[in-house]
Amino acid sequence: MRNALYFTLTLVISVCIKPTAAQDSAIIRNLYTRSLTNPVAYRNLEPLCKQVGGRIGGTVKAEEAVQYIKRLMEGMKLDSVYLQPVMVKHWERGDTEIAQIISKKRGTKDLNVSALGTSIGTGDKGINAEVIEVHDFLELQSIGRSNIEGKIVFFNRAADASRINPFESYGGAVDQRSRGPVQAARYGAIAVIVRSPVPNRSDFPHTGVTHYADTVKAIPAMCVSTNDADLLATWLKEDPSLKLNMIMNCRNLPETMSANVVGEIRGSDHPEEVIVFGGHLDCWDNSEGAHDDGAGVVQSIEILRLYNELGIKPKHTIRAVAFMDEEIAQRGGKAYAEFARQQGEKQIAAIEADRGSDTPWGFSMDASDEAMARVRSWMPLFKPYNIWFFEKGGSGVDIRELKSQGASLFGLVTDPQRYFDYHHCANDTYDKINPRELQLGAAAMATLVYLIDVKGL
Amino acid sequence: MRNALYFTLTLVISVCIKPTAAQDSAIIRNLYTRSLTNPVAYRNLEPLCKQVGGRIGGTVKAEEAVQYIKRLMEGMKLDSVYLQPVMVKHWERGDTEIAQIISKKRGTKDLNVSALGTSIGTGDKGINAEVIEVHDFLELQSIGRSNIEGKIVFFNRAADASRINPFESYGGAVDQRSRGPVQAARYGAIAVIVRSPVPNRSDFPHTGVTHYADTVKAIPAMCVSTNDADLLATWLKEDPSLKLNMIMNCRNLPETMSANVVGEIRGSDHPEEVIVFGGHLDCWDNSEGAHDDGAGVVQSIEILRLYNELGIKPKHTIRAVAFMDEEIAQRGGKAYAEFARQQGEKQIAAIEADRGSDTPWGFSMDASDEAMARVRSWMPLFKPYNIWFFEKGGSGVDIRELKSQGASLFGLVTDPQRYFDYHHCANDTYDKINPRELQLGAAAMATLVYLIDVKGL
Repeated sequence: MRNALYFTLTLVISVCIKPTAAQDSAIIRNLYTRSLTNPVAYRNLEPLCKQVGGRIGGTVKAEEAVQYIKRLMEGMKLDSVYLQPVMVKHWERGDTEIAQIISKKRGTKDLNVSALGTSIGTGDKGINAEVIEVHDFLELQSIGRSNIEGKIVFFNRAADASRINPFESYGGAVDQRSRGPVQAARYGAIAVIVRSPVPNRSDFPHTGVTHYADTVKAIPAMCVSTNDADLLATWLKEDPSLKLNMIMNCRNLPETMSANVVGEIRGSDHPEEVIVFGGHLDCWDNSEGAHDDGAGVVQSIEILRLYNELGIKPKHTIRAVAFMDEEIAQRGGKAYAEFARQQGEKQIAAIEADRGSDTPWGFSMDASDEAMARVRSWMPLFKPYNIWFFEKGGSGVDIRELKSQGASLFGLVTDPQRYFDYHHCANDTYDKINPRELQLGAAAMATLVYLIDVKGL
Repeated sequence: MRNALYFTLTLVISVCIKPTAAQDSAIIRNLYTRSLTNPVAYRNLEPLCKQVGGRIGGTVKAEEAVQYIKRLMEGMKLDSVYLQPVMVKHWERGDTEIAQIISKKRGTKDLNVSALGTSIGTGDKGINAEVIEVHDFLELQSIGRSNIEGKIVFFNRAADASRINPFESYGGAVDQRSRGPVQAARYGAIAVIVRSPVPNRSDFPHTGVTHYADTVKAIPAMCVSTNDADLLATWLKEDPSLKLNMIMNCRNLPETMSANVVGEIRGSDHPEEVIVFGGHLDCWDNSEGAHDDGAGVVQSIEILRLYNELGIKPKHTIRAVAFMDEEIAQRGGKAYAEFARQQGEKQIAAIEADRGSDTPWGFSMDASDEAMARVRSWMPLFKPYNIWFFEKGGSGVDIRELKSQGASLFGLVTDPQRYFDYHHCANDTYDKINPRELQLGAAAMATLVYLIDVKGL
């Protein structure tokens, strides 16, 4: 009799604690329904894009973004909302960025350009020099210092549009932006202009960080739209001695204090074990940072809302982080990892959303074979929601530091076709966000968080 | 010795005729590369949207579309380009479509409305009557004739936004548009206003055909934007005796002759066996018909271009058809089926592209189990291009008549999330087309055509 009672109790408890597959399905269905029928993430994104707007680390706008997200989470009845201090670089674009072709044969022409992030300025008088077009660093070497010294190097290798995944197109061209200025300076170049590393043709210049080296003189660096890169190349063929007039007053200022914004619901069983998810709060100042990465921030916060509204109590602590300074030095990700280490927490899993908010396709995973197999066994639960894969791959730069703390890492993978139409340019605006697609991404992340929480990794 | 020679010759011939898996992969890769790096379909779509524009069957604009597509294909060095006569209905919207709320409590308000396709007009004086809101046909019955007679019926059942596939949201609401006017007229209603059957909220009214019945008096019918449907419902709650002033001068004219446009490359081995693919050339007059379905037309023509440019000689005849009159009575699809029957051709396979040009996901199939299994065995060849499935399901209304002629039917399935933001409304414009996504769809269709041609079904 006592055994029977014990058995019954155990059954009741285990049903309460371990939901059945049908219960899981029902909860997941509710996560999606709530997300699609009440698109709160979509509404939360609008002020970040339209009232705050561009918000590169260290600026007043970045601070406004921190305060907006903090207020937003404070209004959500979470267990705690707090800031994590992050010391960040502070670069400002200034109000002038001009590149004008001056050709005796064809006349003058202003190009659509944008300073590269962390670029130094040109000084008030600007730079006026001949231009030499190159396509990779080997070509710099073969052309040699005598042909480069005193000139502006024009990196013009196009991103390969034939790649099915535009992230690969970008990956195959972005070295010109990130390392081109240092490489060109080694050969005596006095400035650099880089073709935007995107596969589409447009008039938008796509900025992004460039990395100077301590051992090489820093030279001013700007990007040019793909259309104007083609134009410059055409003019150069007709008039190799044309000159480019470059003026930029961007500048690097002293480092400044900023913050990650964190909100969490404490775990009922294992509060010291954390499932963390986030996007980055900073974005390039020339955009609204809608896809990159306001979307990832509001999607992460949406997971907490869905938990609250459905009354789901997580066993482990679930935590949304709006990371600061992804675009320049990833100080926010590092600060978070250091914070987690100091707290003595265990980070079970970390999910990053930083590939735009178009339709979710799946997740990349960076975890043990055992954990990845476990997650793959949940595929039938994701199938009704058109999640196509969980595949081994990089997760995201803001969470990568957590790998060494034993966390399984995940990245939300979305339809990539349009992402580089928006990336790091003035075209990354709120109207480019589709509410259903954004909310589907939030629901997919919430589903993964839920399954990790109840089933373990 | 003779046997050895025979064996060798057979081997050589069979290699030439039956490409290896590696050769198939290489050809498919070329189809995608050509499609992505030279987006001709995308360029061909622009004049159809921007110069021709709205082109519902029977109108001057539909005739301009026929001539544009004919000229386009005539410039492509195909084996033949021709028109197939199609007698079509001819409905014109006129220049007036107004619905104004007149409420003693709240004042007056113009609504965003659009006549339903084939609706009769209201006459010059318009209709001024009270409004009764209903949500389905059973509710009409329960309210009863005495409460409906002499009034305008307002169908206001919202498309279910919680559905993961918006085609299901639409499918669950569109009966109000297609059959609502007839159902309401049975109870003595004098006009109908229908909530747009789309899951999003916007100011665009989404039109579409309504079907009158010979046995029931035709009454004027219009759709209203989802935002204004919500507004009308709110006002009705406060003032159930408000009136709606409706004026439309749309009208049905005598049937007129139009055409399908056909272009083809003759098969080298089996010219009388045909693989046909197409989209529909007509579109609602209130839109540019970019996604619905200019995209399907130019994608189908792109298959022929890719074959020509890569010098691929099909064994079977491959044929692109721009079908007329999909939106009203599908006369083009019927005319094509009749033409094929009269020619004594064998239609091996038919592929329809009519779900918008966002990222391709897979194909629906309506074929024998054997043929479907065969197509599924090609999945590894599609995998690198993010084609996720071949699943049993409806193909498209323009090719369904070919089923009885033994054709295997396929429909290009694309990402559906945004489709009903565009569908049948003024928002379906060229700028909503992403060139990469359009070209990926064309390449996916070309790949399926290629594999059916070389491997058979």
